[in-house]
Amino acid sequence: MSQIEKAGKGRITREMKQVAKEEGISPEELRRNVRSGFAVVLKNKKHKHADPVGIGRGLRVKVNANIGTSPLHAELSREIEKLRAAIEAGADTVMDLSTGGEIDRIRREIVRRSSIPVGSVPIYQTAIEAGSIEEMDIDLYLKVFRKHARDGIDFTTVHAGVTKKALGLIKNRVMKCVSRGGSFLLSWMKVNRKENFLFEHFEEILKIAGKYNVTLSLGDGLRPGCISDSTDKAQICELKILGKLAEVARENGVQVIIEGPGHVPLNEIEKNVRLEKKYCNHAPFFVLGPLPTDIAAGYDHVAASIGAALAAWKGADFLCYVTPKEHVGLPSVEDVREGVIAAKIAAHVAEIAKGNELARERDLKMSVARENVDWNEMLKHCIYPKKLIELRRAECEKNPNLSRAKYCSMCGAFCVFRVYKSSGKNENHVRRNRFEGKGGGDSRKGGSRTGGKNSAHP
Amino acid sequence: MSQIEKAGKGRITREMKQVAKEEGISPEELRRNVRSGFAVVLKNKKHKHADPVGIGRGLRVKVNANIGTSPLHAELSREIEKLRAAIEAGADTVMDLSTGGEIDRIRREIVRRSSIPVGSVPIYQTAIEAGSIEEMDIDLYLKVFRKHARDGIDFTTVHAGVTKKALGLIKNRVMKCVSRGGSFLLSWMKVNRKENFLFEHFEEILKIAGKYNVTLSLGDGLRPGCISDSTDKAQICELKILGKLAEVARENGVQVIIEGPGHVPLNEIEKNVRLEKKYCNHAPFFVLGPLPTDIAAGYDHVAASIGAALAAWKGADFLCYVTPKEHVGLPSVEDVREGVIAAKIAAHVAEIAKGNELARERDLKMSVARENVDWNEMLKHCIYPKKLIELRRAECEKNPNLSRAKYCSMCGAFCVFRVYKSSGKNENHVRRNRFEGKGGGDSRKGGSRTGGKNSAHP
Repeated sequence: MSQIEKAGKGRITREMKQVAKEEGISPEELRRNVRSGFAVVLKNKKHKHADPVGIGRGLRVKVNANIGTSPLHAELSREIEKLRAAIEAGADTVMDLSTGGEIDRIRREIVRRSSIPVGSVPIYQTAIEAGSIEEMDIDLYLKVFRKHARDGIDFTTVHAGVTKKALGLIKNRVMKCVSRGGSFLLSWMKVNRKENFLFEHFEEILKIAGKYNVTLSLGDGLRPGCISDSTDKAQICELKILGKLAEVARENGVQVIIEGPGHVPLNEIEKNVRLEKKYCNHAPFFVLGPLPTDIAAGYDHVAASIGAALAAWKGADFLCYVTPKEHVGLPSVEDVREGVIAAKIAAHVAEIAKGNELARERDLKMSVARENVDWNEMLKHCIYPKKLIELRRAECEKNPNLSRAKYCSMCGAFCVFRVYKSSGKNENHVRRNRFEGKGGGDSRKGGSRTGGKNSAHP
Repeated sequence: MSQIEKAGKGRITREMKQVAKEEGISPEELRRNVRSGFAVVLKNKKHKHADPVGIGRGLRVKVNANIGTSPLHAELSREIEKLRAAIEAGADTVMDLSTGGEIDRIRREIVRRSSIPVGSVPIYQTAIEAGSIEEMDIDLYLKVFRKHARDGIDFTTVHAGVTKKALGLIKNRVMKCVSRGGSFLLSWMKVNRKENFLFEHFEEILKIAGKYNVTLSLGDGLRPGCISDSTDKAQICELKILGKLAEVARENGVQVIIEGPGHVPLNEIEKNVRLEKKYCNHAPFFVLGPLPTDIAAGYDHVAASIGAALAAWKGADFLCYVTPKEHVGLPSVEDVREGVIAAKIAAHVAEIAKGNELARERDLKMSVARENVDWNEMLKHCIYPKKLIELRRAECEKNPNLSRAKYCSMCGAFCVFRVYKSSGKNENHVRRNRFEGKGGGDSRKGGSRTGGKNSAHP
């Protein structure tokens, strides 16, 4: 039985207990939310060594990192490095989106080595194994899906909401379709003149998912790919279909989350969250970004963190990271790290805005450490200690005196954490050359009226 | 006469015309906003070669980059490099906050070489020239201020709102004071047991400012330094004083903007903007970040872009960038670049949310270029073309075939901009090894049912 089935029968599973403890909520509250589909517990029965992760109502906002090969970058070892980088930077889940190299082996190695839940998108491998997109069919899809489920994949994207109706709705879009899975299915429908086989055979997919407690992530194949297409008919039409499919999934004992946009201006983000909660009966919302501008190529992790923070504050539950390489190429290990950290910042910012006491406490500890200029204590609370260590070390190497001093190179002895506290203690002599160890500043020559006073401090 | 005095007499200045043209608004509308103090035109009469910049109602959100030496990094050449990097990345203004090296010479060189308005904080040099913070006085301050004004400084921070009342209000704060100028004045007041001389002699400062059309940026010496202190009594008390000083400045023919926080949780940002507009009669609001979390050391430019986008959307007019080096050290040239770009993204995201047609048009052009996979056209509209060139070039170097292909290494031939458009045209054969140029993928061995079909495409 899946987590939602057990929850429906009043059972609090071991996984629920573990998640509830981690999140500081009551197991019974979590069980009720899982039963109603307001929360899910990611955990494939076959992915034994991974910790379960809860997503949805009453739970911390989570961050997903997409990794995986492409036809042009297909080395397993690099993907394993990305997995490690994602986990180290604090990702709650990863998705293996591999489309290049030995796909089965890569997926199995990622699952084997991952201590966090792993997601996948079986339609990619289905297209590859079919030989062409147009030749995909439900039998091959189910075969691939079963393989992923048996391999221990904890959640899979299923683009079952892209139906024939979409073909007409996307005609006037600036960007017809920016979802890879979505574009596969649109092409398949156009050529085969049939309804999306994932939609038609949804209950067969559910059978496999329920057996292994694979959570379905209902994909938004019609997510807007630019601000101009945001919240348009095609997107909302698909969202409503996803809401109906979510209901079917729950009735069949399968946990479900809903994927969301995409490119959305800041002023439409709250509306997008509200619509998802309304049409999908409060299923956990998994947003990609959202990106509140289209022009940030090379810096899309920054743009995404803006959209993600607002989305999560307003109720999105799960943030898919965006890396600096989005729209340009497959992310490197470094891109993965930067993407996860930016998304973690957004998630944390949202927790603070929502009044999460634990999140606020972390900020308070960081601030007390900062007021005391206690670098070691700051490392315990900052978002990514390695970066802070690296930056501080570089500063101290450039200025050997700095490692003994508590302040940083921004203000030197003008440090705000020193000036006011030491006021009246005869320490606030701020002649530049006292700290520089250099002579010849022009202000001494030209402007100082008290030039002789600090001669004890050359 | 200053811009606001001329506006009051019904005169549309050359600078107003230039700004109005650049912003696509009517010169008369700008004149009215300048007259009322809802907008300012930055332009010291002595900074002849710089373009004027308008800030406030009806105008695009602007971005400021803080540069300048510290006692530990005092090279002029590096600051000139930072100036260039800031301008190239799109900064609308820079502030020279130098406290190390030949301060007068650095300021003059920055003004001389800057095509954009330059700001300063004369209290720093006052403390340095006084020999100690406690020995500062109004005469020395005015001498320094006059020097800055004559050198062509377009706007200066004046911490006139930190009054004796603050000494009691900050006692219970986690972080007493995180403004350098604020901490200087608190120390001075504590030791000298007198009121802030900038507050007491505010009208003398106005005389100099008016003469050169130096815009006053009323500093928030009591801005919160952490989430826990946000929007507290000390901050609001100072804000109300700044509002009164702003009125005095306008009456005396001096343009004024108001500096704002700092560290503010996302859920308090809109309130902070509203309070500023209320207490300061819609004076342009110049925010530092704001940072919606305290823990992002090393990534504070990302955190700041989240806060800045929301603040600007809700009405903040002027964004002071935050660099990745914030809270750790003086920014490098690279930090300046990254800081400006993150703030520019935030400003643009806000313009889009506010419905700015020009901003939306830029995103639309970028998206059309993206749909057409037209890399050269993307370069014309993206936030920082150099980065996109660098990333794309690196990808093409790794994959020589990529420069001929239009797609990127993320999806290779699975590119969404190719798949749907080419569907039915017999181009969607997605066998991995066709694109990889390698044999031996396991899915061919194990799964493909149509393995022989594409033998023409090894």
